[in-house]
Amino acid sequence: MTNNESPSHPFDQAVALQQLNQGRWQGATSKAYANMVGPFGGTTGATLLQAVLSHEELLGEPVSITANFAAPVADGHFEVIARPLRTNRNSQHWWAEMVQEDQVVAFATVVTARRRDTWGSTEAEFPEVPLASDLPRSSREGRPPWTRNYDMRFVDGELLGQPDKDAPSRSRAWMRDEPPRPLDFVSLSALCDAFFPRIYIRRPKLVPIGTVSLTTYFHADGAQLASAGSDHVLGVAQANHFGKGFFDQSAEVWSRGGELLATTHQVVYFKE
Amino acid sequence: MTNNESPSHPFDQAVALQQLNQGRWQGATSKAYANMVGPFGGTTGATLLQAVLSHEELLGEPVSITANFAAPVADGHFEVIARPLRTNRNSQHWWAEMVQEDQVVAFATVVTARRRDTWGSTEAEFPEVPLASDLPRSSREGRPPWTRNYDMRFVDGELLGQPDKDAPSRSRAWMRDEPPRPLDFVSLSALCDAFFPRIYIRRPKLVPIGTVSLTTYFHADGAQLASAGSDHVLGVAQANHFGKGFFDQSAEVWSRGGELLATTHQVVYFKE
Repeated sequence: MTNNESPSHPFDQAVALQQLNQGRWQGATSKAYANMVGPFGGTTGATLLQAVLSHEELLGEPVSITANFAAPVADGHFEVIARPLRTNRNSQHWWAEMVQEDQVVAFATVVTARRRDTWGSTEAEFPEVPLASDLPRSSREGRPPWTRNYDMRFVDGELLGQPDKDAPSRSRAWMRDEPPRPLDFVSLSALCDAFFPRIYIRRPKLVPIGTVSLTTYFHADGAQLASAGSDHVLGVAQANHFGKGFFDQSAEVWSRGGELLATTHQVVYFKE
Repeated sequence: MTNNESPSHPFDQAVALQQLNQGRWQGATSKAYANMVGPFGGTTGATLLQAVLSHEELLGEPVSITANFAAPVADGHFEVIARPLRTNRNSQHWWAEMVQEDQVVAFATVVTARRRDTWGSTEAEFPEVPLASDLPRSSREGRPPWTRNYDMRFVDGELLGQPDKDAPSRSRAWMRDEPPRPLDFVSLSALCDAFFPRIYIRRPKLVPIGTVSLTTYFHADGAQLASAGSDHVLGVAQANHFGKGFFDQSAEVWSRGGELLATTHQVVYFKE
């Protein structure tokens, strides 16, 4: 894309940043990615990552991001500030924050590194599930606008479905951007927040919830993500514990070919 | 403890901070918690949490911490700076950093909250394992000094042991401070980094490694931790993926009575 073209995919529009000066950008929330209140957290975290990846001093590719959702993001404009906290020979630690009316509403720490070929092994198991093409697309009826930008096909653990007794909050779903868009770190980071809150899988009661902190580890490099193209990826998510106003959930994101692209964890506030 | 008494437990000495002014403290690495090079990362992260919990403006109890290890911590003195980034009605987002010679060597973001009684459920499974008293204490021979401050009793997955084919990097071990010390958030956060790097469970080769980012979610409140006393807790740790110079590992920490106290995740650099 040249500077004269607008990004055409709604996701690229949602995470688009206009540079104000080095390490400082302006952006705006996207109606297409609106949630019940304010924007979908996945695009907020992805926008913070986008700022780091746009920074002139960037070294390498993302290894991890922890995004914290400190306060409601208001619909409209925001500023993003990103700076390296420490630059080593082959890795970098980053700070990024989203600011509205001089208040931090979200922030992230990011690790980037030059990745090298080493010994490798995957211990998590790629599950045997039907192909995406053999599953119906999940309904978006009565769901917030952001869900319209994802094609989700549930193997099990559909929202407000019947929980499985052995893995009661587990969901397994094929997911991709809608319309299809080639996978990259920024879109994968948003996908990692597209798993519905596990409490809604367990209980039919729609209580107020909000992710407070989301950590994603990237196991694939840019070339592997590019080779996943715009295919569906398989998400497997499950909670560990609910109690005293918070729960955590962990998830894996697999390529169609069975490569583990990312693991992701979050802690979520809930009322009641 | 009064101001005239020194903390008597080696862990309390390791994480002791002397306030310089509001939000700023001085501390020093502890020889008792030395690692192969520099201090055990568990005490570094615990020291950052200690600063947040010592801050005059603290609201509530820790819900999550993500500590990043940005550069080697040198033996000797350091400063810690902590400040609230955002204070909401019932929760707070914190920044804490450890500085040596004007350079950030480690930093953390922390969420604290007033926890309330709500619906609860644990989906992770407390494993059936022998009692700590029926297992031998793990040898500390040839291991770095910090390991002497933990009593570890392995059910399986001992360091450089024979990997289990079905869960090759999994370790299950009863662990406690040595000498015994009542559990609290600060000591639990250090325990969450006491799991050996999974690559050493899988491979007998002692390649250089280093945790780059460690996230812990606290599921217990202070009263529950206090009731765990100085008993052993059960740690269950396993890797998900190794490749391109990094691996991740996830772990659960259970009380002897089967309460899930914390879940914890980290991404670790490795050479070769």
